[in-house]
Amino acid sequence: MGGRRDPLEWDEVSCEHVITDEWIDFRRSSYRFPDGTVYEPFYTYSRKDFVVVAATDEEGRYICVRQFRQGIGKVTTEFPAGGIEKKDGSDILEAAKRELLEETGYVSDDWRHILTIPENATLADNYAYIFVAESCRRVSDQSLDDTEFLNVVLHTPEEIKCLIDGGDFMQAIHALAFYLSGK
Amino acid sequence: MGGRRDPLEWDEVSCEHVITDEWIDFRRSSYRFPDGTVYEPFYTYSRKDFVVVAATDEEGRYICVRQFRQGIGKVTTEFPAGGIEKKDGSDILEAAKRELLEETGYVSDDWRHILTIPENATLADNYAYIFVAESCRRVSDQSLDDTEFLNVVLHTPEEIKCLIDGGDFMQAIHALAFYLSGK
Repeated sequence: MGGRRDPLEWDEVSCEHVITDEWIDFRRSSYRFPDGTVYEPFYTYSRKDFVVVAATDEEGRYICVRQFRQGIGKVTTEFPAGGIEKKDGSDILEAAKRELLEETGYVSDDWRHILTIPENATLADNYAYIFVAESCRRVSDQSLDDTEFLNVVLHTPEEIKCLIDGGDFMQAIHALAFYLSGK
Repeated sequence: MGGRRDPLEWDEVSCEHVITDEWIDFRRSSYRFPDGTVYEPFYTYSRKDFVVVAATDEEGRYICVRQFRQGIGKVTTEFPAGGIEKKDGSDILEAAKRELLEETGYVSDDWRHILTIPENATLADNYAYIFVAESCRRVSDQSLDDTEFLNVVLHTPEEIKCLIDGGDFMQAIHALAFYLSGK
């Protein structure tokens, strides 16, 4: 029945949902290894999938946002990004367009999906949908949620490289998006 | 005193340690935003820093490992990687050398540190130390921990690109390491 089992797979033996709310499902589990031994604890979580937009304006400058990130407790420079509710392909592109517009006031007629990759394959089961949007133009002001405080900044590709190398562009998936966007 | 405060910063108002053990410190916090409002919950965690090694053999093939990752519940192809205890620079390089040798049996005389980047700036305060090791040669068998079950596989740069594009190379920081390694 179904595909052949990979001999490297583990089996989850038990799972305790430590926190389950609208933001996260955080679990503590035990697993049976390929040699039959059972080991714990392993922590995993589920969160919303999200979009990341590597957007450039008509002069090829990346449209970035500066905002506080509570994980590292610092203000970062990164690309526009945001959580999505549904897994349907067209909805995801719409979510990407909406995030870019709301966070920066920019729109584009030239969108490409370039990669879907887990947020963190070791710990989580949600995915990042990476898009490229080129020749963006500013059509409005920002339209931010109550929990968003972010500034728009424009950077040339060379500046993004320096920010990454200098440790000032700190979202790994966004740095990957930059290199995939081929600038 | 000290540097000027960034007006985008948030202040942590309260913090509950939901789980604290040798593997993780998982917290639920409230924050005061720049406009003075207080919002909750925000979840953050601390885990060990870790090394990621983009290692190539004398023919330029990447030395990869296949292993089960409980977050996505799948077997991945990725680079050798592992947690580290200390933040001292030389210890980190030693940890990278040890991980490569233990997981794959390969050694190199040509190591470069290419980037340090947060695992997840939004959620966590730990960092990935990315190294490149070139002209690696196999000197021993694997020497795995009791909790490690992984196979070594070699891939050309073109194959790694295909694996990333096809969704089969699922560790985002490792994909970033591949592009930074300049192959």
